[in-house]
Amino acid sequence: MEIKEANGKLGVLVVGIGGAVATTMITGTLAARKGLAKPIGSIAEMAKMRVKSGEEKLIKDIVPIANLNDIVFGGWDIFPENAYNAALCAEVLKEKDLNAVKDELEAIVPMPAAFDHTWAKRLNGTYVKDSANRAEMIEQIRQDIRNFKAANNCDRVTVLWSASTEIYIPLSDEHMSLAALEKAIAENKTDVISPSMCYAYASIAEGCPFVMGAPNLCLDTPAMWEFSKKMQVPIAGKDFKSGQTLMKTVLAPMFKTRMLGVNGWFSTNILGNRDGAVLDDPDNFKTKEVSKLSVIENIFEPEKNPDLYGDVYHKVRINYYPPRKDNKEAWDNIDIFGWMGYPMEIKVNFLCRDSILAAPIALDLVLFCDLAQRAGMYGTQYWLSFFLKSPMHEFNEEPVHDLFQQWRMVKQTIREMIGEKEPNYLD
Amino acid sequence: MEIKEANGKLGVLVVGIGGAVATTMITGTLAARKGLAKPIGSIAEMAKMRVKSGEEKLIKDIVPIANLNDIVFGGWDIFPENAYNAALCAEVLKEKDLNAVKDELEAIVPMPAAFDHTWAKRLNGTYVKDSANRAEMIEQIRQDIRNFKAANNCDRVTVLWSASTEIYIPLSDEHMSLAALEKAIAENKTDVISPSMCYAYASIAEGCPFVMGAPNLCLDTPAMWEFSKKMQVPIAGKDFKSGQTLMKTVLAPMFKTRMLGVNGWFSTNILGNRDGAVLDDPDNFKTKEVSKLSVIENIFEPEKNPDLYGDVYHKVRINYYPPRKDNKEAWDNIDIFGWMGYPMEIKVNFLCRDSILAAPIALDLVLFCDLAQRAGMYGTQYWLSFFLKSPMHEFNEEPVHDLFQQWRMVKQTIREMIGEKEPNYLD
Amino acid sequence: MEIKEANGKLGVLVVGIGGAVATTMITGTLAARKGLAKPIGSIAEMAKMRVKSGEEKLIKDIVPIANLNDIVFGGWDIFPENAYNAALCAEVLKEKDLNAVKDELEAIVPMPAAFDHTWAKRLNGTYVKDSANRAEMIEQIRQDIRNFKAANNCDRVTVLWSASTEIYIPLSDEHMSLAALEKAIAENKTDVISPSMCYAYASIAEGCPFVMGAPNLCLDTPAMWEFSKKMQVPIAGKDFKSGQTLMKTVLAPMFKTRMLGVNGWFSTNILGNRDGAVLDDPDNFKTKEVSKLSVIENIFEPEKNPDLYGDVYHKVRINYYPPRKDNKEAWDNIDIFGWMGYPMEIKVNFLCRDSILAAPIALDLVLFCDLAQRAGMYGTQYWLSFFLKSPMHEFNEEPVHDLFQQWRMVKQTIREMIGEKEPNYLD
Amino acid sequence: MEIKEANGKLGVLVVGIGGAVATTMITGTLAARKGLAKPIGSIAEMAKMRVKSGEEKLIKDIVPIANLNDIVFGGWDIFPENAYNAALCAEVLKEKDLNAVKDELEAIVPMPAAFDHTWAKRLNGTYVKDSANRAEMIEQIRQDIRNFKAANNCDRVTVLWSASTEIYIPLSDEHMSLAALEKAIAENKTDVISPSMCYAYASIAEGCPFVMGAPNLCLDTPAMWEFSKKMQVPIAGKDFKSGQTLMKTVLAPMFKTRMLGVNGWFSTNILGNRDGAVLDDPDNFKTKEVSKLSVIENIFEPEKNPDLYGDVYHKVRINYYPPRKDNKEAWDNIDIFGWMGYPMEIKVNFLCRDSILAAPIALDLVLFCDLAQRAGMYGTQYWLSFFLKSPMHEFNEEPVHDLFQQWRMVKQTIREMIGEKEPNYLD
Repeated sequence: MEIKEANGKLGVLVVGIGGAVATTMITGTLAARKGLAKPIGSIAEMAKMRVKSGEEKLIKDIVPIANLNDIVFGGWDIFPENAYNAALCAEVLKEKDLNAVKDELEAIVPMPAAFDHTWAKRLNGTYVKDSANRAEMIEQIRQDIRNFKAANNCDRVTVLWSASTEIYIPLSDEHMSLAALEKAIAENKTDVISPSMCYAYASIAEGCPFVMGAPNLCLDTPAMWEFSKKMQVPIAGKDFKSGQTLMKTVLAPMFKTRMLGVNGWFSTNILGNRDGAVLDDPDNFKTKEVSKLSVIENIFEPEKNPDLYGDVYHKVRINYYPPRKDNKEAWDNIDIFGWMGYPMEIKVNFLCRDSILAAPIALDLVLFCDLAQRAGMYGTQYWLSFFLKSPMHEFNEEPVHDLFQQWRMVKQTIREMIGEKEPNYLD
Repeated sequence: MEIKEANGKLGVLVVGIGGAVATTMITGTLAARKGLAKPIGSIAEMAKMRVKSGEEKLIKDIVPIANLNDIVFGGWDIFPENAYNAALCAEVLKEKDLNAVKDELEAIVPMPAAFDHTWAKRLNGTYVKDSANRAEMIEQIRQDIRNFKAANNCDRVTVLWSASTEIYIPLSDEHMSLAALEKAIAENKTDVISPSMCYAYASIAEGCPFVMGAPNLCLDTPAMWEFSKKMQVPIAGKDFKSGQTLMKTVLAPMFKTRMLGVNGWFSTNILGNRDGAVLDDPDNFKTKEVSKLSVIENIFEPEKNPDLYGDVYHKVRINYYPPRKDNKEAWDNIDIFGWMGYPMEIKVNFLCRDSILAAPIALDLVLFCDLAQRAGMYGTQYWLSFFLKSPMHEFNEEPVHDLFQQWRMVKQTIREMIGEKEPNYLD
Repeated sequence: MEIKEANGKLGVLVVGIGGAVATTMITGTLAARKGLAKPIGSIAEMAKMRVKSGEEKLIKDIVPIANLNDIVFGGWDIFPENAYNAALCAEVLKEKDLNAVKDELEAIVPMPAAFDHTWAKRLNGTYVKDSANRAEMIEQIRQDIRNFKAANNCDRVTVLWSASTEIYIPLSDEHMSLAALEKAIAENKTDVISPSMCYAYASIAEGCPFVMGAPNLCLDTPAMWEFSKKMQVPIAGKDFKSGQTLMKTVLAPMFKTRMLGVNGWFSTNILGNRDGAVLDDPDNFKTKEVSKLSVIENIFEPEKNPDLYGDVYHKVRINYYPPRKDNKEAWDNIDIFGWMGYPMEIKVNFLCRDSILAAPIALDLVLFCDLAQRAGMYGTQYWLSFFLKSPMHEFNEEPVHDLFQQWRMVKQTIREMIGEKEPNYLD
Repeated sequence: MEIKEANGKLGVLVVGIGGAVATTMITGTLAARKGLAKPIGSIAEMAKMRVKSGEEKLIKDIVPIANLNDIVFGGWDIFPENAYNAALCAEVLKEKDLNAVKDELEAIVPMPAAFDHTWAKRLNGTYVKDSANRAEMIEQIRQDIRNFKAANNCDRVTVLWSASTEIYIPLSDEHMSLAALEKAIAENKTDVISPSMCYAYASIAEGCPFVMGAPNLCLDTPAMWEFSKKMQVPIAGKDFKSGQTLMKTVLAPMFKTRMLGVNGWFSTNILGNRDGAVLDDPDNFKTKEVSKLSVIENIFEPEKNPDLYGDVYHKVRINYYPPRKDNKEAWDNIDIFGWMGYPMEIKVNFLCRDSILAAPIALDLVLFCDLAQRAGMYGTQYWLSFFLKSPMHEFNEEPVHDLFQQWRMVKQTIREMIGEKEPNYLD
């Protein structure tokens, strides 16, 4: 496989650039450039893997990942605040850390967002595009991308959705082929064409990789698969695998590996950031719930292991709880059973920081999609499932949820890029 | 590799046969034979793996594991109660479950144990051998094994240490070669030759595989490695990986895979069974502590990842707490950090049942050691690290602690037994 | 105050006699009679208080509480099972404990229940009265009470609602006076006259104290207050204060006493019994939620302590989770703040058993209401707030929620019954 | 009772003024004076109580408590840093909060401490008095007090021990009378006369109230009781009741009030501040352990309630865990039982901040001792038990541990000061 070098500037256009995840990702990247902070949690920047020689090398020394110094950030938001003020408001990072890169953050000012209140009723954006219809909305986004690329002299651009969860909609006929999708856009079917689809369509049309960080139905449609292949653009989604689901995708494989049965898994979350406010709407929550619920059934394969997983009661709750702010907290109760069917319980209380966990994931997805494009890999990037709560898959395939299997997929793909084999079964 | 069929009876001689783990393992095995309970948690009995054809098959359909119906249980204890009364007293299993196999349990009566109070001061056994010295102790055990084998018409015997943790001793010159060990036995050096070493020596001398379920210094010595190879006997140890450590060996790999840093890991345990009473003695606790502490450092490799794991404060506490009985409970607090060094916390509260988790592990170690012997594999069984808190390893090697790497070792070994290759990188 | 002795039989008629709480209460009472178990948790049976002399005496030695031996149990249910079979099905008590009083339990067979599916949509009772209208329903219940009393030669009868939570309805004009209530009954207004009101009305009409153990709008109406005074009958309600709310009514007073501020209180519950199934219906949950939410605001008095409690975000969730059965589990996260406003967090995980906690409360409410009637105290029994999640109060009064204040009310009332004063301020 | 007005300056001399508790208390007091923060958690400053008229009034409007503006802070430490630098190092408060009162903090410079390494082996103070013997040590402290009072023009001085826990010593003959104590001082018996006793003796000799905030054997001796009465000085101790014990003294009364039995109570703590380092020494831990263990037995009165509390297994552990810094964290597991003896469990995880909880307690003890002195109350201040883990009591009395009883003692004492009676039993 031939991979183009990462020459020139890489534009990173973030939808929801004023949000907590985006401002945290940007601040950390700017700080890392200046040597003020390590990009902890970033696989592209910090992880090593073993190469054929047996040596462990940094992934970025194995494949040509874009240099952080070459990134130019931009994006859209429904509020006009620059990244510094938006980050202050998000209350994720300490003022001291923001001030260290204040000038650069202040220079990042959003473009008005393409927005439709129907898809996120708890949000009242004031800084939105005036679009007559979906086709115009798409054209406006495309123009934004082109303008940004030219103004910043970018060699390449990747677009990242780091905005809110949209309301739940099922897959419908309009999403089943590119032709159907384009017809629905032309007919301005606003109930099946979400704003996030407009961003994705625009991005792909401009030849830019697109990453879906929320659980929205967007990239995971035959229409987008077709379009991304046609345009030779990598796409990756969906929903950053940050906290509770990350835990699930290591604990569930452990139970299964150890042949321990599971009766029930109750997961509750409290969070108080903007994401929590949006998810307080049942329609938006449903989108998230579907994304979160799929995980463990897929790992347990109840049909193959009916004695152990034939009757798992899995429930996920998300509660808007303002005192917690961005510090999302998860409490899981897991009812397991062992030898002779005797029950045991595990409680996991994860006091996490949503944006701290999500920021390096967002950055990695951008960097790896850019790499994939230079390597000529387009369409759905299965190998990036590692970062995603609901990895995309074609209908006839099963997603891989097990974190350690996903990690082997990452390593295997990188080996294939450089034409190597796995060194031995224990890597 | 040629593997002998599992014909004839398999004697399983348990040291500490009246303990909670042993009686739970035996009761469950008897119940499984009668179809009253599934052997949940047993890899040998229930786990599947993918074979070359892509098909998933039960491991016991791939390699010739001994049939549960062919097992004859026996063993030693420091109390004379039969297995039924001992199990009642352990309060692990419901009376109803014990009664279902009462006759068979009552028929299992221990032989007097080889015991030395100095090595477990909290135990006051009443049913112990009168041995003039260590050499005689070994000879008595060997005679017991021979008698049992003959009386029960066993084709093969495996010996399993499921008794208490002995006091901590460091590796000393006496353990460094078979000659030195035999000299120390001859000289009756009771401070470096523990009772568990007598059982191990006797077992190996009789050609029987030996499994060390406690953290005792016993099998993990050059002397025993040499002896087991000389006698062509498989050995496996040490310390069943049941609850808290099991969690650690999946959570620590998760942090590392995700490049999340760790500042501290505080683990506390409360338990009220006989094991808890023994560990209330600081000398015995130290043996356990050393076993439990090694785990995460090995996984984190701080020297390779100083930014993330260069300063992990790891503390393990075990508290004797009678109200909890056998229902060992663990509470872990883990201090992690992510993007830009921001801290997060995870608390895991595992309300487990020590013997329920340990019983299938004990059975699996026995069954797989017996298999190994028939396959001509002798000496340390690295591939059984999956079941062990402190996997044995030669001095120039690193143990593997990551549960999922260990699981791949199990599967890889089974594949080698039948001359297959791994089907694909995602198994 | 003159108190009649507790001579003769006391009939205890339980609505929902086949439920988990009722069968647990009955089994424990029967076991206590036989000396097989202590009535742990019962104030009437086990609590002591200090009398004027300074001596501590059992409450039942201070005032004439009915003897457990004089109780005759009966009641109604929507399923025809006798109390033994119902208790088996509830899976609260061990079979061994049920078998110890099996004959007596089997002899307790319910009468068909007055039931209206609209008020509890998740229940599908098969053993219900055929009542043309609410007036007939009431008359049938009254006839049941009279029959039971005669058949069992009871001196007195108390009726206890231990059945499910009904759907939420607001207080309406029909509940504002006895005349209005009777008119609504006559007009068969089934949307404002719940089945529980029919039981309460019938009970009061028959001169029997009535206890409301669920959060239903029933006794807490001017109509019932008027009726109970007119008929000289004690009434007590509502909603047994068993687990999570019990904790709240000691923790909230602690924060307030210590002048610690509170930002948020998130309470979640998982339970899998019939009560949980009923509460899975949003209409029924609302009734419970209103009952549970009122507690802490009343204790904190935010209007008097705006700096500390002016902005408490309080959220209560109840989740139907079948694996947990009757073992209701609560997880609370409490966000507090102290000196200079610095935040701290408390997490409480209560692994309780709903019926084990509720059974002695139910028994105590019955015994104390019977005592009150003999002491000539009628209408709302404020002093029994100690046992109740939503203590009834007239509109111009504030309920008392603080457990220790409630306990002082109990003791003060008992002192008044026997004409004593509080011995000193530290009792 | 006649109470002198709080005229003039109040000197507050803190032993361990550079510690986390002291610097937090001082910073918050300075901030409160400037209106920058509320003195949250302070009873003297914020709590109300009901007076005879039924009205609720601030305690400081009922009795003449010293005005925060009249306080002058000073004290001793084993390190020479001023309060600003010490507070920075303690890492309890945000830099922003310290900077708001930076000038005043910097002006607070400690006097060299009276110190004896034997009593706190984990501390290596560099800024200590050179005292030939205990008598000289006392005289040096007295001189410090006199100098401070004169230099700052103080009307009154209170001395507060906010330094570390000393090693455990039992009560011995030397502590049994003032004469014996003075003889031991004269004979320089350094193994029974601790540094904290020297501070207490010096303080009382100077007519200054003394508060013991650590669990040291110091004030709780007949010698000190005698001396404080002779000198007409109030004394209060011992050990601030901040986090875990605060919880215990509300939960234990709840169990008892509800007649719920208790089998076991396991309490573990992790903390990483200087206090934690000191307590890592078993001799110092023992002092703390004895203080912490006494609490629940006293509340449960097992001899009066053998069925419920006759066999409570109570264990307390404190673990030095540097990653936690001052944010002490407690995890309690409580095993309770109810109706028919069925077991339940409560887990409490308190993520607290030691100094944030302790600071207002320290301030309150100072302010109330100063008030007591002006009211002519001297010797042991039982009524301040509310603030203390191990309330002092004469040998023939029982301490009161129940927080709500303690709170009533506070209010009752204040009422007595102003000659009022309790308004009604529900206050």
